[in-house]
Amino acid sequence: MDHNVRLALLVVLLFVYLFICAGMFHALEPWADAWWLGANNYTEATREFYRNYTGNKNATDDFPFVPRSFFESFFYMTSVFTTIGYGHITPITTFAKVFTAVSANFGIPLLIYILAIFGSKVSDLVLAGEDRFLRRVPGPYGRRTVTVMLVELFGLFFILMIPGAIFAELEDWSFGDGTWYAFVSVTTIGFGDLVSGQRYAGVEADPNLPAFNFYILCKVCYLLVGMTWVATMWYLVADVLPPVRPEGQQVQKEEE
Amino acid sequence: MDHNVRLALLVVLLFVYLFICAGMFHALEPWADAWWLGANNYTEATREFYRNYTGNKNATDDFPFVPRSFFESFFYMTSVFTTIGYGHITPITTFAKVFTAVSANFGIPLLIYILAIFGSKVSDLVLAGEDRFLRRVPGPYGRRTVTVMLVELFGLFFILMIPGAIFAELEDWSFGDGTWYAFVSVTTIGFGDLVSGQRYAGVEADPNLPAFNFYILCKVCYLLVGMTWVATMWYLVADVLPPVRPEGQQVQKEEE
Ligand SMILES: [K+]
Ligand SMILES: [K+]
Repeated sequence: MDHNVRLALLVVLLFVYLFICAGMFHALEPWADAWWLGANNYTEATREFYRNYTGNKNATDDFPFVPRSFFESFFYMTSVFTTIGYGHITPITTFAKVFTAVSANFGIPLLIYILAIFGSKVSDLVLAGEDRFLRRVPGPYGRRTVTVMLVELFGLFFILMIPGAIFAELEDWSFGDGTWYAFVSVTTIGFGDLVSGQRYAGVEADPNLPAFNFYILCKVCYLLVGMTWVATMWYLVADVLPPVRPEGQQVQKEEE
Repeated sequence: MDHNVRLALLVVLLFVYLFICAGMFHALEPWADAWWLGANNYTEATREFYRNYTGNKNATDDFPFVPRSFFESFFYMTSVFTTIGYGHITPITTFAKVFTAVSANFGIPLLIYILAIFGSKVSDLVLAGEDRFLRRVPGPYGRRTVTVMLVELFGLFFILMIPGAIFAELEDWSFGDGTWYAFVSVTTIGFGDLVSGQRYAGVEADPNLPAFNFYILCKVCYLLVGMTWVATMWYLVADVLPPVRPEGQQVQKEEE
């Protein structure tokens, strides 16, 4: 099969798998932690729902939960498969935890495999550019250092600062916070000190608004692009590092 | 240089770099968010310190901070370099954020490179075992599926459940929560819904206790072992997947 067709099918598979897992997770735990949302309008009905659902009889104002929209569950599954794990949504019931672990078992490798392909394609482009424009930089290590620094600088603007400015605008954050959120996200650290979309979710706006759902889909695509940038740098650096396996000890490919 | 000597030096370099970065981060932000610690004994002096340090004049009971021990900063840097990012400690000042980003720029690749070597060595052992014991399983894909499932099962017990039981004992969690914490940690998702050591930190015990610091060092080693398990599975799976780069499009190695 053509390599690009296969890649396109893999991306479709990733999104289908994301949607299915998000739907199943949403069926398991269709609530949100109102503490994260800054909510103060959770009702006794919500608490009753939570108590019945989890068997946790201690649901009080200290454990307030509000219903969550499907696309918030979609963003949760994205945070699992990318291993970002913001932590603004985490499974509470054992069943949802087991479901998360099992779906991650396939979701994480699928996403990383796709990112590895993306990264290799972009790094091929970068290396073609290096061949063409950096011929005069002496030595392969010097040349590659310049290349990596240029790619870092490119990403600093187009992956961190410009999206950071957009996040700042949409989330009412400072520019620094938006850039920090972009950095923490695309490196998959995902502290959760800032999580986008929270001010729109649950309380301040109807989470079923098409614009809110579109925002989440855009963020998922942004994360894939940003992580591709990181993967590209990994290729560029690994390419000049000593190989992980010493010479002559490569795993033999299976022959049948 | 001998491959194993180089690996040993890289591990030493990682720990030296971790210690240096932890020391610098600790100098920048030597406090802990008491909300996470469940603290209620922060003083006006602590708040005054925080106000003076950050310029945030709004430090009230809603933003309580208590001093943090060096090894908690060490665990923070580990959470950055592993990209786990529990989020129980996050930088507050812009300078600490920039420092985190710059140190991660070298720390993450260093740690991943070491894990890649670990993973390749362990996967070589596993493949030797596969060659020896799974000869009778028909077909390379069937054989590799059995191998991966055995490695998963091995890790389920020795990386997730047994350490999970130890975490449960030390942290006063349920066994399920301990296992969940182990899973969330070694996959580098790091939700932060559970973070080990919190009950010992800051308030309930003196964080400068040798036992507490030893616990943190053990956890860092555990994380490296656990992530090696994940890296091993990645090698075993990637080995039978179609190559990321199509044939004949490999990056040309630099020649000088
Ligand atoms: K995280
Ligand atoms: K993470």
